[in-house]
Amino acid sequence: MTVRSLALRWEPGHLEILDQRLLPREERWLACRSPEEMIGHIHELAVRGAPLIGVAAVCALAEFARTGAKPEAIRAAAAKLRAARPTAVNLMNSLDRMLAGELTAARLVDEAAAIAEDERVMCERMAANGAALVQAGEGILTHCNTGGLATTGAGTALAVIQKAHEQGKRIHVYVDETRPLLQGARLTAWELKRLGVPFTLICDNMAASLFAQGKIQRVFVGADRIARNGDFANKIGTYSVAVLARHHEAAFHVVAPRSTVDPECPGGAAIPIEQRKPAEVTGSHWNTGDIQVWNPAFDVTPAELVTSWVLDSGNFNREEVGKGKLCGG
Amino acid sequence: MTVRSLALRWEPGHLEILDQRLLPREERWLACRSPEEMIGHIHELAVRGAPLIGVAAVCALAEFARTGAKPEAIRAAAAKLRAARPTAVNLMNSLDRMLAGELTAARLVDEAAAIAEDERVMCERMAANGAALVQAGEGILTHCNTGGLATTGAGTALAVIQKAHEQGKRIHVYVDETRPLLQGARLTAWELKRLGVPFTLICDNMAASLFAQGKIQRVFVGADRIARNGDFANKIGTYSVAVLARHHEAAFHVVAPRSTVDPECPGGAAIPIEQRKPAEVTGSHWNTGDIQVWNPAFDVTPAELVTSWVLDSGNFNREEVGKGKLCGG
Repeated sequence: MTVRSLALRWEPGHLEILDQRLLPREERWLACRSPEEMIGHIHELAVRGAPLIGVAAVCALAEFARTGAKPEAIRAAAAKLRAARPTAVNLMNSLDRMLAGELTAARLVDEAAAIAEDERVMCERMAANGAALVQAGEGILTHCNTGGLATTGAGTALAVIQKAHEQGKRIHVYVDETRPLLQGARLTAWELKRLGVPFTLICDNMAASLFAQGKIQRVFVGADRIARNGDFANKIGTYSVAVLARHHEAAFHVVAPRSTVDPECPGGAAIPIEQRKPAEVTGSHWNTGDIQVWNPAFDVTPAELVTSWVLDSGNFNREEVGKGKLCGG
Repeated sequence: MTVRSLALRWEPGHLEILDQRLLPREERWLACRSPEEMIGHIHELAVRGAPLIGVAAVCALAEFARTGAKPEAIRAAAAKLRAARPTAVNLMNSLDRMLAGELTAARLVDEAAAIAEDERVMCERMAANGAALVQAGEGILTHCNTGGLATTGAGTALAVIQKAHEQGKRIHVYVDETRPLLQGARLTAWELKRLGVPFTLICDNMAASLFAQGKIQRVFVGADRIARNGDFANKIGTYSVAVLARHHEAAFHVVAPRSTVDPECPGGAAIPIEQRKPAEVTGSHWNTGDIQVWNPAFDVTPAELVTSWVLDSGNFNREEVGKGKLCGG
């Protein structure tokens, strides 16, 4: 096996992903036989999580190269993959790394495997860096899914939570269900149950009451893109949590690998936000076109609401981020 | 007809309610032949909305009296009805009014009809008082359902919105879907569509982004109980909206009839909060008992986050509420 993670398996000649739309009821694997097929899986959210999307895309590109595709066709496929999820920058960064060298099958297979391995190692470092912040007995809120399903390692924010639990810190996790697609209720709950971490599922609009009752001391969330100034895009609802944390004086941390930082992006306003179908919100209650719906997949949290940025390369506070440290400055 | 509103019809001998669980797909009316049947409808949320629950309960009690029930049995039925929705104080206030006099069928029928009519008239006054606050072109956020489905008149917060629209103020309404039971997505959207008021449906966790984009200038919500000091309980998620409004310096108003004020209740901490079934949150994704869920039906918003209290008796600011004006002090 070149890559074997919770939601992606690849050995040259066979690439498959776990269909995350069916969890927690069913664990079904889907074959990915072409870049087009992978783009479909990304659009439909069968594969999701900013780091995993990056890895899935480069594996699909390596497989495409193995079929004998010419450099020109490989570049065209990479361009299409790049557009599949416009907010998540890991996708762009990972594809750039693939294209920065000879476009032979042998090199692309090695590079894709190296990207997957790098993501795995970065998860371990983020987990250690973030868990060091957690105090014994804390209540921790998280949003969306940022665990093993979202990366090729233990995850980003959820890897921190797992590590703090393993360190015996007696934490309790509150999981936002994360409307409209319920990544928290379905995926994070599934992962925490597997890991044996104590948790309580809530609707997104219940978090405020838990803060008011003093049940939440700390928030860990992931990111789809972090701008140079520390603003970041993440699953819709993240900004709402950041405002609640500020109002209740709880700590708010974003956890991401270096591959999520976009040094070309000056601030949150420059991050494109994908709009998705109204039916994700209306479900079966309304027919398409009956009523107007606003359904952004992501929102932007400004740096001023972040207590610290937990990267594989370390924890960064607001002052450090202001000095450009997220980009290695 | 003694009472004929959007979701309740009563003439002596026949009481029925619109099954609000089936909206917007189906308009089905349910007969209510006993206090026990009405309690079932309240528990199951076939009938809902704090003012409407109060009216539905007294109509059921009047019907029970018409069957020849003795005063002792009427008092016992009233006690059971009173316990059906512990947070909503209109229920207690309306039943108290029924029991404060002779327990004859004739008087109870007249009193129930008078309570329904009083609620209707109070809606008109709230609508006028609240609409006076709205400026032309404002974006207005509302949560849960507070319209004709929740009262025997035009509603509380939604009646204000309807009135502002009718006054030609060119408002746009943002409707929180209101998890877990989607009263916003199903009921408020259904009412606004009927009324021709322009609106956009969002998930609860998207409101923060709209505030950040300057799309929302004002919030109107209802209440299930208002304490003497102005703290109030309302549908879960209301407190979250109040924190967001404060952070973004938008106006936040609670709209309710006098029957929602509980002069016996000193503050929010004294309001009992009903916990509901985990399955409302988990849907079909998990079996009962698989995971731990927290599902409070209501939350408490402290008076300090409220810009003004819109009652049928007038608008009250924080200073006035601090002086006891909500209780006529």
